[in-house]
Amino acid sequence: MSTLDHFWAVVPAGGAGTRLWPLSRKAAPKFLHDLTGRGRTLLQDTHDRLEPLVADRLLVVTGADHRDAVLEQLADIDPEQVLAEPSARDSMAAIGLAAALLERRDPDAVMGSFAADHVIADPGEFRRVVARAAETAAEGWLVTIGITPTHPATGFGYIARGDALGAPGVFEAAEFVEKPSAEVAREYVDRGYQWNAGMFVVRPGVLLDLLGEQDPAFASALRGIADDPQTLADVWPTLPRIALDHAVAEPAAAAGRVAVVPGDFGWDDVGDFDSLGTILDAGNATANRTGPVVLGDPGLVQVIDSDALVVPASGRVVAVIGLDDIVVVDTPDALLVTRRSRAQDVKQVVASLQQQGRDDLT
Amino acid sequence: MSTLDHFWAVVPAGGAGTRLWPLSRKAAPKFLHDLTGRGRTLLQDTHDRLEPLVADRLLVVTGADHRDAVLEQLADIDPEQVLAEPSARDSMAAIGLAAALLERRDPDAVMGSFAADHVIADPGEFRRVVARAAETAAEGWLVTIGITPTHPATGFGYIARGDALGAPGVFEAAEFVEKPSAEVAREYVDRGYQWNAGMFVVRPGVLLDLLGEQDPAFASALRGIADDPQTLADVWPTLPRIALDHAVAEPAAAAGRVAVVPGDFGWDDVGDFDSLGTILDAGNATANRTGPVVLGDPGLVQVIDSDALVVPASGRVVAVIGLDDIVVVDTPDALLVTRRSRAQDVKQVVASLQQQGRDDLT
Repeated sequence: MSTLDHFWAVVPAGGAGTRLWPLSRKAAPKFLHDLTGRGRTLLQDTHDRLEPLVADRLLVVTGADHRDAVLEQLADIDPEQVLAEPSARDSMAAIGLAAALLERRDPDAVMGSFAADHVIADPGEFRRVVARAAETAAEGWLVTIGITPTHPATGFGYIARGDALGAPGVFEAAEFVEKPSAEVAREYVDRGYQWNAGMFVVRPGVLLDLLGEQDPAFASALRGIADDPQTLADVWPTLPRIALDHAVAEPAAAAGRVAVVPGDFGWDDVGDFDSLGTILDAGNATANRTGPVVLGDPGLVQVIDSDALVVPASGRVVAVIGLDDIVVVDTPDALLVTRRSRAQDVKQVVASLQQQGRDDLT
Repeated sequence: MSTLDHFWAVVPAGGAGTRLWPLSRKAAPKFLHDLTGRGRTLLQDTHDRLEPLVADRLLVVTGADHRDAVLEQLADIDPEQVLAEPSARDSMAAIGLAAALLERRDPDAVMGSFAADHVIADPGEFRRVVARAAETAAEGWLVTIGITPTHPATGFGYIARGDALGAPGVFEAAEFVEKPSAEVAREYVDRGYQWNAGMFVVRPGVLLDLLGEQDPAFASALRGIADDPQTLADVWPTLPRIALDHAVAEPAAAAGRVAVVPGDFGWDDVGDFDSLGTILDAGNATANRTGPVVLGDPGLVQVIDSDALVVPASGRVVAVIGLDDIVVVDTPDALLVTRRSRAQDVKQVVASLQQQGRDDLT
C-alpha cells in the first residue's frame, strides 16, 4: 500500500478576493467563479485537479455561508466532506481542524492543503510534484511546494532553499520570507528562491505537534473538537486568528524541520485583475489573439484601438475606444473601470463602499 | 408694432447625436436628454430660451417618430406647433417647410431657426443678439448669427465677416467656409471669423425666394405643401436632402445678400462627450469642483485618482481608478468607456453595431 492511498486533500475555500470586486463578493467569493472562461469555477478546477490523486479523500473547509454553494458546485461529493467554519479564523484554524479530524480517521494519513482559488496550468505536473511531496511528508517532514518564479513578483512571499535532502527534487527549506520590494525580489529570483503558494503537505499529527510546540492550547483545542464535534460552535470563536505560515511553517523552518519541493506547473493565485489578465492572455496566446481579452461572451464587446481586459458579466454591450492597459468589469449592479497597473487599488473601492454602508455591493 | 411682434422661432429637432451614444439613440436623440444636469432637456432649454421673445410663435419641426416625445416634453405648446416630417430630409426641407407655412400665415413674419440640441450659457445675451438679427432680417437680409470663437475649433464651419452694415453689430457675411484644419482654424480666429452655428434669421418669403433662385422646383414644392398640407406625405419624399447652408446660405453670401450678427453668449453644440465634459466642467467651476464630472447622481460614482467624466444612467455604482481623460457612460443596455480625445470615434461603435444588426442598441 503506497503513501498515496492515504493521501488526503484539504481545500480551504475562503478569502473574499476583494481585489477582484465587483466580480468577487462576500456572498460569492472568488473561488465560486469561473475566472478562466473554461466553464468550471476555481473550486471545481481545484477539485478536478486533485481527484486523480485522492478520489473521495478530499475535505473542503469553508465558511458556513458558503457551504451550500460549495455542495452545489461539487455535486458528486458527500456533504460530510464539506466542513463549515462557524466564522473565519484564518488558515491555521481551518487547516488544523481538518488535520485533527484526519488524525483520528486515518492513522497513516498524509494531507496536502491547496487553496480553492488558485489556477494551475499543468495539472499533471502538479500531481507529480504533490506525490513527491507526499513521500517526503510521510517521513515526518512538513513539506511545502515552492513555485519556481517566472518573474520577480512582489506580491508573493518566498522560500529560501537549503541543502538537498535524500530524494531527488526535495530540499530543506531554509527560511520563509515576506513579500519583498522589487529590488529584493530580483535578488531572491537570482538566488533560486521559490514562491510561497501556501501549499503544505504533512502528516496531520506532525502538523498538530508542530503547532503544539508553539501554542499547546491551540493544538489541543483542535484535537478536542475532533474528539467531540459538538463543541465546535463553542470552541471555534476562541481560536487564534493566524496563518499556518506564521503559526507553524516559519518556526519549523527555523528548526530545520521543513522541506521544500520545487514545482513548475504554471501557478497563479489570481490575486487581482492584472493577474487575471495575464492568465487569460496566456490561455489565448495559442489561439492567435488579435482583439481584447474577454472573460465572457466576446459578442458583447466592441473594441476600437484598445488593449483591454473586459468582463461583460451583465449581458450589456460594452464598448471601449482608444484605451490601453484598461480593465472593464461589468456586473448587474456595479461597474469597475481601472487599469491593470492599478489593479491592487480595487480594494480601496470596496473599503469605501463598506464605509458608506453599501454592504449590498461588497 | 415692432418687428419682434412678428418674430417666429423655428426649432428643427432632428439629428441622431451618434457621437453621444449610448445616451443618445435613434429612439431618444440628444435633444430629448438633459445633458446639463439642470433638470431640463436640451429641447426644453431651447424652448425656455426663446419663449420670452416669441411666446407661442414657435414651431418645432421633428421626425414623425419623435412628435409624441416633443409634445410630452413641451407640455404647454399647441400640437399644431409641432410639425412632423414624414422622413428626415435635412435642414433645407425642414426649415423651408416652416418658412412656407409662416409665409402664408403672417405676411410680416420674420423667422429664426435654432436647433433643439444646442447649449447656450447666457440666454439674455442670446435674445439681444437675435433681436438685432431680426431687425436686419426685416429689411430683407438673410441673417446668420455667427458665434465669436473661444478657441480655434476644427469641428465647426466658419463665417468670414465683410463690411459693417448700417446698424451697429451687423456685418455683411463675405463667405461660409467648411470645418478647417487646426492650422487654418487658428488663422480664421486671428482674422475674426465667426463660428457657423446654423442660426438663420430671415423673412420666410426671402428664404424661399433665395431657394427658388437655386432650385425653383424645391421652393415651389414647399409652397405647394403649405398651400395644401394634404400633399405633404406624397411630396416630402421627393424633396432634396440638402442642408440650408449649401442650398441657400452659401450662394446668397456669394451674391452679397447675407448679413452676419456676431454673438458671444456661451454657445456649444454638445457634439460629443469631450464637448459635454467641457460644458459640465464650466458649469461646475463656480461650485469648486474637486471630484469627477458627473452627469447624474454623484452618489453612484466612486472615483480614485481619476479625472473622469461619468454618466451613471443605469442606477448602478460606477467605480473608476487611476484613469485621466476618461469617459464612462453607463446605460441600462450598453456601456461606453473611452477617452475625451477619442470622443469623435464613438460613431464608429454605432456604425459597427448597426452592421451587426443591433438596431435595438442604436
